[in-house]
Amino acid sequence: MVEALGSTARTRLHRAPKRAVSDRSALHAILDEGLICHVGFVAGDTPVVIPTGYGRVGERLYLHGSPASRMVRALGAGAPACVTVTLLDGLVLARSAFHHSMNYRSAVVFGVARPVTEPEEHREALRRFTDHIVAGRWDGVRQPNARELGATAVLALELDEASVKVRTGPPVDDDEDYALPIWAGVVPLALTHAAPIPDPRLLPGLTPPAAATAPRPHA
Amino acid sequence: MVEALGSTARTRLHRAPKRAVSDRSALHAILDEGLICHVGFVAGDTPVVIPTGYGRVGERLYLHGSPASRMVRALGAGAPACVTVTLLDGLVLARSAFHHSMNYRSAVVFGVARPVTEPEEHREALRRFTDHIVAGRWDGVRQPNARELGATAVLALELDEASVKVRTGPPVDDDEDYALPIWAGVVPLALTHAAPIPDPRLLPGLTPPAAATAPRPHA
Repeated sequence: MVEALGSTARTRLHRAPKRAVSDRSALHAILDEGLICHVGFVAGDTPVVIPTGYGRVGERLYLHGSPASRMVRALGAGAPACVTVTLLDGLVLARSAFHHSMNYRSAVVFGVARPVTEPEEHREALRRFTDHIVAGRWDGVRQPNARELGATAVLALELDEASVKVRTGPPVDDDEDYALPIWAGVVPLALTHAAPIPDPRLLPGLTPPAAATAPRPHA
Repeated sequence: MVEALGSTARTRLHRAPKRAVSDRSALHAILDEGLICHVGFVAGDTPVVIPTGYGRVGERLYLHGSPASRMVRALGAGAPACVTVTLLDGLVLARSAFHHSMNYRSAVVFGVARPVTEPEEHREALRRFTDHIVAGRWDGVRQPNARELGATAVLALELDEASVKVRTGPPVDDDEDYALPIWAGVVPLALTHAAPIPDPRLLPGLTPPAAATAPRPHA
C-alpha cells in the first residue's frame, strides 16, 4: 500500500512505498514485539539517536529515563521526537550484489512527547515498562518506592503520526540473473532467548518466570 | 570508564558514565557484529530516525541508499548525522521493578557524511555492504553494472566522534532486596539464524554459503 498510517508529509514513504503498511494492528504488533526503540531528537543543531526501552498502552507509547538525562530533558521541553522500532527478520541473498537486502518490520513514530506527571498514569506506565520486558513481571516484584518514582521521568507519545514498513519474502532478482548458478534465498533471523542465568545471590528454590522466555509479543 | 572515544561534549556520557567504554576495538566489534544502524538526521525542524544497512572499513562507516532517498539527500547536503548501532544481549530481571534493565552494547557516531564519488571507493564500499551481510558474498555474486552503480549513492562517515556504552552482568538490586523470594537474573538474548530458505526459483544443486549462518562478527 502506498500510504502510511495517518499519512502526513513526514510519514508518507518516499522510497519503496510498496513496503508501506497502513494497518494499526501491524504498528501495534511491531511495538509489542520489539524490546528497544531508537529515540531521535535534536540537541542544538545535532541529531541524537539513543536506544531505550519503552512500553505501549493503546494508541500511546511511553518512554522513561532519569530526569537528568539529555533525552528526557529535551523531549520534556517539547523537542520533536522520532521513535523507531526495527525488527530484523532475515538476510536476503540475491544473485546480484545490488539486490541483496534484509527482511524487516519497522515502525517510525513522530510527535512531541508529554511529560507524565499524574501519579496514576506515571505508575501505570512504569508497570507497562516492566511488563513489556516480561509479561506479568510487575505483580511479582517489589513495587517502586517514592524515591524510585521520583527518579523515573515518564514521557507519553501519541501514536498519531506513524508509518510501518515491511519487507518479507525471497530476493527479487533481475530476470536474466535467475539463470545464474548462485545460491539465493533468505536466512531467517530472530532474537532468541538462551537459558536464564540465575543471579549469583539468588535465594535457593526459585525458578525463573515462564514468561521470561516466552515468544514475543506477549499476550 | 568515564570518557568515551574521542570525547567531546556530544559523546561524553551524561548518564551512567560507568557504562562507557573507551576502546576503539569495542567500537569496531559492535559495528561489525551489528547488521543495521539507526541513522538520525534533521529534516526541517524534525528529527528522522531510519534503519538501514552499513559497512565499516577501518575508521570509516559507509551508508548507502537511493540517490532520491530523504536520508541520502539530507546527509549528502551536509546535514549532521547521528548513527547508532545497538546489540541487545539480555533481559535483566531484578527483584525490584526499578532495577529492571537490559544488557546491551551500543555505539553512537556523530559527524557529517561525505558523498563518495570516486569510483574505486564507491565500488569498495558496495563490496563492504555485501560482505557485511555475508562474509565473502561479493566475490560469488553478479557485480553491479553501470545502472546499478548509478542507482546507489554512498556516504562516508569518519569514526572520529563516537561513544560506546555497554551493560553486562546480573541485576544490581538494593541491599535489602536480596532477601526477597523473587527470581532474579539474566535472560540472554541473541540474534540467531534459522535454516536458510532457498529461493523458489533456485537452480538445482546449489547450497547456501557457510558464512550465511556463521556467528558474527565475521572474521
